[in-house]
Amino acid sequence: MIVLDMSMSLDGFVVGPDDSVEEPMGRGGFRLFNWLDDRDSDGPSGQVYREAMTTRALIAGRRTFEHAGRWNGDHHDGVPMFILTHHVDEGDVPPGTAVFVTDVAEAAARAKEAAGDRNVLVHGAGAGQALLKAGLVDEIEVHLVNVLLGQGRRFFDNLPAEYIELEPIRQLVDRDVTHLRYRVVR
Amino acid sequence: MIVLDMSMSLDGFVVGPDDSVEEPMGRGGFRLFNWLDDRDSDGPSGQVYREAMTTRALIAGRRTFEHAGRWNGDHHDGVPMFILTHHVDEGDVPPGTAVFVTDVAEAAARAKEAAGDRNVLVHGAGAGQALLKAGLVDEIEVHLVNVLLGQGRRFFDNLPAEYIELEPIRQLVDRDVTHLRYRVVR
Repeated sequence: MIVLDMSMSLDGFVVGPDDSVEEPMGRGGFRLFNWLDDRDSDGPSGQVYREAMTTRALIAGRRTFEHAGRWNGDHHDGVPMFILTHHVDEGDVPPGTAVFVTDVAEAAARAKEAAGDRNVLVHGAGAGQALLKAGLVDEIEVHLVNVLLGQGRRFFDNLPAEYIELEPIRQLVDRDVTHLRYRVVR
Repeated sequence: MIVLDMSMSLDGFVVGPDDSVEEPMGRGGFRLFNWLDDRDSDGPSGQVYREAMTTRALIAGRRTFEHAGRWNGDHHDGVPMFILTHHVDEGDVPPGTAVFVTDVAEAAARAKEAAGDRNVLVHGAGAGQALLKAGLVDEIEVHLVNVLLGQGRRFFDNLPAEYIELEPIRQLVDRDVTHLRYRVVR
């Protein structure tokens, strides 16, 4: 199962303005990760964090991957990472368990195969949008953070004007965040 | 107290694409109001609807007002309506309890005075954004609807790149919607 998993401000941003390699979350965007201070707690934020860590493959967009310093080749516990990109420079071999993939359906298929009976985690607005457009997303977990950022990069953007119906699975409230999980209805 | 009150898709839209007088919610945008089928229920959607109806003044943007057929001069129970607009044509007197106001601070002050010890309801993305920018919003009630619309008019847009911290007050889950209420921290 493929799960989009993103921390998002109430106004829809996953990264603040002017994101770059030097400032991967954009100006002020790390505000969205304050809730991760509770990742080791017994509360809801700990629960959803531990769930995310049980995923056994990752799909991410190239921009997210580069801005995160290619995660030094390891996102969590050495799970395979499939990095969606339009173009691969000759000789550019990503580190660790990462591979570049140029086709979204191929990325989804390979990630699901790698994950076996566990879930695939998707990080990054670009990868999320590509998978949503292709109808390949099973669930969406939004960590809705109690802040308006005003500007930045949006989680949901550049999608066609078509309904995607969602079925709510779970709502968990914790310090600074509401964790909302939905199933994508197909 | 001034309360922004809007139904919004998970991807941040309050109106579908191509909204107009003929199609005030844009293509497919009425999807966002399905939860109002439960407005007379004893459940959460009934509760939040009845609360909204206890407000004793309304602020809305000109676009929302016109697309709603000027609400025939009455939004609910004849409460005063302050319609934010950039320009008023000579001789254009709005119907019923509506008046045009060109200054956002004046609209807020007059609406609060009219509401007395009750709340002011704000409808429309434009009015909401103007009041947020001016620091005049006390609470935000988002009826977060279980759908992605893909395109349309966004609730939160055109804001400066500045944090607005929110304090969660209430989360109520009902059929098709999660009602999220926040206090704006100043």
